Amino acid sequence: MFELHPRLHRDCITIGNFPLCRLLLMNDANYPWFILVPQRHGIREIFELNEVDQHQLLRESSMLSKVIAGQFHADKINVAALGNMVPQLHIHHIVRYTTDPAWPAPVWGHAAASPYSDNAAAILVKTVRELFPDALSSAG
Amino acid sequence: MFELHPRLHRDCITIGNFPLCRLLLMNDANYPWFILVPQRHGIREIFELNEVDQHQLLRESSMLSKVIAGQFHADKINVAALGNMVPQLHIHHIVRYTTDPAWPAPVWGHAAASPYSDNAAAILVKTVRELFPDALSSAG
Repeated sequence: MFELHPRLHRDCITIGNFPLCRLLLMNDANYPWFILVPQRHGIREIFELNEVDQHQLLRESSMLSKVIAGQFHADKINVAALGNMVPQLHIHHIVRYTTDPAWPAPVWGHAAASPYSDNAAAILVKTVRELFPDALSSAG
Repeated sequence: MFELHPRLHRDCITIGNFPLCRLLLMNDANYPWFILVPQRHGIREIFELNEVDQHQLLRESSMLSKVIAGQFHADKINVAALGNMVPQLHIHHIVRYTTDPAWPAPVWGHAAASPYSDNAAAILVKTVRELFPDALSSAG
């Protein structure tokens, strides 16, 4: 039974579900920052997923990366599965700009998170949902 | 025509070639740190690879992650495609320990690189080549 790790639940806003992954928005207005969490129990590493799930993760990750790169006019997308603090497998997809607070360093440990206003978060979630009209369903 | 980015050439030691990717060892003894570079010209993002190459990258990345996790008794594998400084697509695979200099933070921007001795590098490269007797060929 899949359950989102409490730390991800606390730090993120749920956007919806792809066939495999839950799509989260990191509640940090410094960067358009999205997280994919495969809805599988007890998985810490990509290679622990079965092959079918690994390929589905790749499809969802590439689709997400391409769409957010276009929508947010990214200079670069950073994709990373770290999980040193939150063991549940989750893959960061971060839109980077040469003008953002951490550039060119990775974002972790730089600027403190700057939470969205409720209104800004609602608009962004709606925008992203509309980018995936077929692939994304509401989170259960 | 694929050519390794000069910065990767300078900072890394070539181990060999998988069918798609060149396998590099980061010359930093702080962490067992490997890099896969798809041998394709002008690619910055995973989603820019064609589908066949994306799936091959996934296969090589998962195989590498699983093998190094076992060989080096990793507490965690960090997998990341950042590329903010070196635009050529390259995917980090870093063996992490709860006792390493950066834990639990990501490795970038922490301890200064600690180059291997020639002897230590040669032993490690030989060890890793022997882990992939069928998949890895000498770099051209």
